[in-house]
Amino acid sequence: MLLCHSIFLFLIFFFSVKANGDIQKFEKSSHQLLDYIIKGNGSVIAYEWLSNLVDEFGPRHLGSENLDKAIEYVVHGLINDGFDNVHTEEVPDLPKWVRGDDVVEMIEPRVQRLKALAIDGCPPADLTAEAVVLTDFQELKDHNVSGKIVVFAQKWIGYSKTLKYRRAAYTVQELGAVGVLVKSIAPNSFATPHTGSGARGSRIPALTITSEEADMLKRISNRGKKITIHLSIKSHPDGTVSSRNVLFEIRGSERPSEVVLLSAHIDSWDVGQGALDDGGGCAAMWNALFALKQLADSNPVFVPKRTIRVAFWTAEEQGLIGARYYYESHKNDSHERFVFASETDQGAFKPLNWFSSLEFAGTKAQKKRLNGIVEIINKYGIPLSILINDKQGDVQPWADEGIPTVNYLPDRGREHYFLYHHTDADYINVFEDGDLEYTAAIFAVVAHIVANTEDVL
Amino acid sequence: MLLCHSIFLFLIFFFSVKANGDIQKFEKSSHQLLDYIIKGNGSVIAYEWLSNLVDEFGPRHLGSENLDKAIEYVVHGLINDGFDNVHTEEVPDLPKWVRGDDVVEMIEPRVQRLKALAIDGCPPADLTAEAVVLTDFQELKDHNVSGKIVVFAQKWIGYSKTLKYRRAAYTVQELGAVGVLVKSIAPNSFATPHTGSGARGSRIPALTITSEEADMLKRISNRGKKITIHLSIKSHPDGTVSSRNVLFEIRGSERPSEVVLLSAHIDSWDVGQGALDDGGGCAAMWNALFALKQLADSNPVFVPKRTIRVAFWTAEEQGLIGARYYYESHKNDSHERFVFASETDQGAFKPLNWFSSLEFAGTKAQKKRLNGIVEIINKYGIPLSILINDKQGDVQPWADEGIPTVNYLPDRGREHYFLYHHTDADYINVFEDGDLEYTAAIFAVVAHIVANTEDVL
Repeated sequence: MLLCHSIFLFLIFFFSVKANGDIQKFEKSSHQLLDYIIKGNGSVIAYEWLSNLVDEFGPRHLGSENLDKAIEYVVHGLINDGFDNVHTEEVPDLPKWVRGDDVVEMIEPRVQRLKALAIDGCPPADLTAEAVVLTDFQELKDHNVSGKIVVFAQKWIGYSKTLKYRRAAYTVQELGAVGVLVKSIAPNSFATPHTGSGARGSRIPALTITSEEADMLKRISNRGKKITIHLSIKSHPDGTVSSRNVLFEIRGSERPSEVVLLSAHIDSWDVGQGALDDGGGCAAMWNALFALKQLADSNPVFVPKRTIRVAFWTAEEQGLIGARYYYESHKNDSHERFVFASETDQGAFKPLNWFSSLEFAGTKAQKKRLNGIVEIINKYGIPLSILINDKQGDVQPWADEGIPTVNYLPDRGREHYFLYHHTDADYINVFEDGDLEYTAAIFAVVAHIVANTEDVL
Repeated sequence: MLLCHSIFLFLIFFFSVKANGDIQKFEKSSHQLLDYIIKGNGSVIAYEWLSNLVDEFGPRHLGSENLDKAIEYVVHGLINDGFDNVHTEEVPDLPKWVRGDDVVEMIEPRVQRLKALAIDGCPPADLTAEAVVLTDFQELKDHNVSGKIVVFAQKWIGYSKTLKYRRAAYTVQELGAVGVLVKSIAPNSFATPHTGSGARGSRIPALTITSEEADMLKRISNRGKKITIHLSIKSHPDGTVSSRNVLFEIRGSERPSEVVLLSAHIDSWDVGQGALDDGGGCAAMWNALFALKQLADSNPVFVPKRTIRVAFWTAEEQGLIGARYYYESHKNDSHERFVFASETDQGAFKPLNWFSSLEFAGTKAQKKRLNGIVEIINKYGIPLSILINDKQGDVQPWADEGIPTVNYLPDRGREHYFLYHHTDADYINVFEDGDLEYTAAIFAVVAHIVANTEDVL
């Protein structure tokens, strides 16, 4: 028994050393790659790439000309860059929804137009009703909301936990409410309401309002005053539309059928520029692959053995539709298989401290090997940790299939990101020097190692 | 000679000890006052006072019903509070200007409506012209701006130094420009343009745009693309109007004709709630006087020997008009004289660090005595310093006359304040626990000591 135990421990140790041994040998090339992107010729270009995209095409809402033109422009650039297999894949039957010139106005106890953004799917309406201001779903029990507009002035307790209020229309319409106004899902606001999904198929109008005005309505209501609100909503669903995922890659030199997938999403909401969400993710992933390609031109160490593919998903904002469609379309492909998948959609920010992490789904052994990669990045002076997270956004289908997946969550992706997310303030100004470059550099290293080791992750 | 010198030094020492000796004896009562406002029954009420004002009446723009109603409401409350000499004084012939539904739209190289706020005095217009994007006044030399719309995407170098760009209309109209768009005078923006004064009498439309969009226009222009902008401006001057300064006081028990003046301004721009600028200043000054009054009811130590008067000025935003009118109306009054004047208009924030200061104009001896007061406040654990500043805003006329004046500049009054200033984001949410109370407490102590010492300041 003791002997068995010793052999077992020896085997763990042996495979552990072997497992990460082949990763450690990439330290030199990885640091070259980090140098190249962060300090060398690989820098700055991501910011230019992104500013061209967002300034010249504006926000890229599903169903808009902007999105179609932006995809056309991006593809043209990728072909000029000389990437392999640059192409788009159509995603059909997407739910088109058009924002109108919506008016939300408090008319009692005094007249004030409220800043509001309709929630995706919100139907048109023209109605006036008394408002009931609540702070959570529990309070619905104690109020008759029939014929009323429900205002939720809920507390921010982090994005994922507060998000359900943006979907409140489905709950309150069953109780007879005629509309719902939801405090923006954000830690704070600067007179900027935050849009998002959450009302597709709703029968009643559903809009977000600013934190400031939601709190104001709550205070007025607490004073026992009757609040009446008029809604004139022109936003409306508008049938279906198709869009396209964008794909490009560096073909693997030895195992081209094994694919290392990096991704971000090209579509955005119709407010701001869609720079943070998620133009920056696209720019960083583009920069990662472009740097690898440029280095590979003169140094074979950087030619990946496996294929490194980048996907810019479409219709992410309507529910991760582009990525899922791609997964379903290719899961039975016999000529290639995915060995790794990642997404960057929570701010392409430079890691400033150890709250920055790669959120990981996979086996313990894979985590151990990812740890070897992160150690190489840490040795360069970049704070980055690994956290287990089974929520993997766009690459969830890959995670569910057992393929190791990674989501990038920099420190500013936790709270700061949500100040700008889905608002008119989502402009390229959110990025500071180094943000896009560091994000690109981290993923360039991850892809470089995963594409070249014997055991992948 | 040596003897003379010794006598001189002794006299300085003697008068210095004497000068501050009578201030030091107020330490106990001052700390009682600080306790009462910060921790006792004197707390929280300022926030309630302010939220009632801003929620129930909204922003208080000169010439609006909101402002008139708010003044009426405030006066009613002050009478109920039992203050002495509560009254208003009319300020006639004020320049009324009305914001319209203004549209600023980039139409080349693509169509995008820009977020903009007309600058006070901006005349109506309907025109389309090519834009010339500049970063400073110097660049005007190298560009023909005749028939063009000048866009200034200047760098933020602090409020007072950047402010001149909001007044650019006067300069560029002389060069033949047909309009001017100015990047908001702010360290940053969140899709929120910042309004303000600077176009009264201008012949050409003048508006501020967001930092994000000014920077975008600059980048597009740098790419050599022609930018064309359409302006449809409905804002317009609208004759004159009168408004009212609000005055109230605790009458001095021994020297009622000597007046210690605390002030803030009741009017605001028409955006946001006017909570930061300057509802908070009013709330804090009200709280200071209310606390003194409450304590005085049961403890004669707090009955001021001199009169402590609070003024809420009107038409501050149009150029400190209310305060100046009051000064001019009363400077020749023979029955009373001002011994001290102060203003709070740069954020009624709690001091968090030693960048918080009382900006002071007066003699060295007065500064020394003010220092004695500040030391008492410091001993309580509040970081606060004194800085010499001959810019005294609303109380400038008093400073110019040689009366000691103080402006409150908390640490967050330096940059943070200007994120919200003159924007839709100027809501009561900018204030955190303790902000209004600490501001009130500081001025309550200053007024308490200045009103009761032998030598004033």
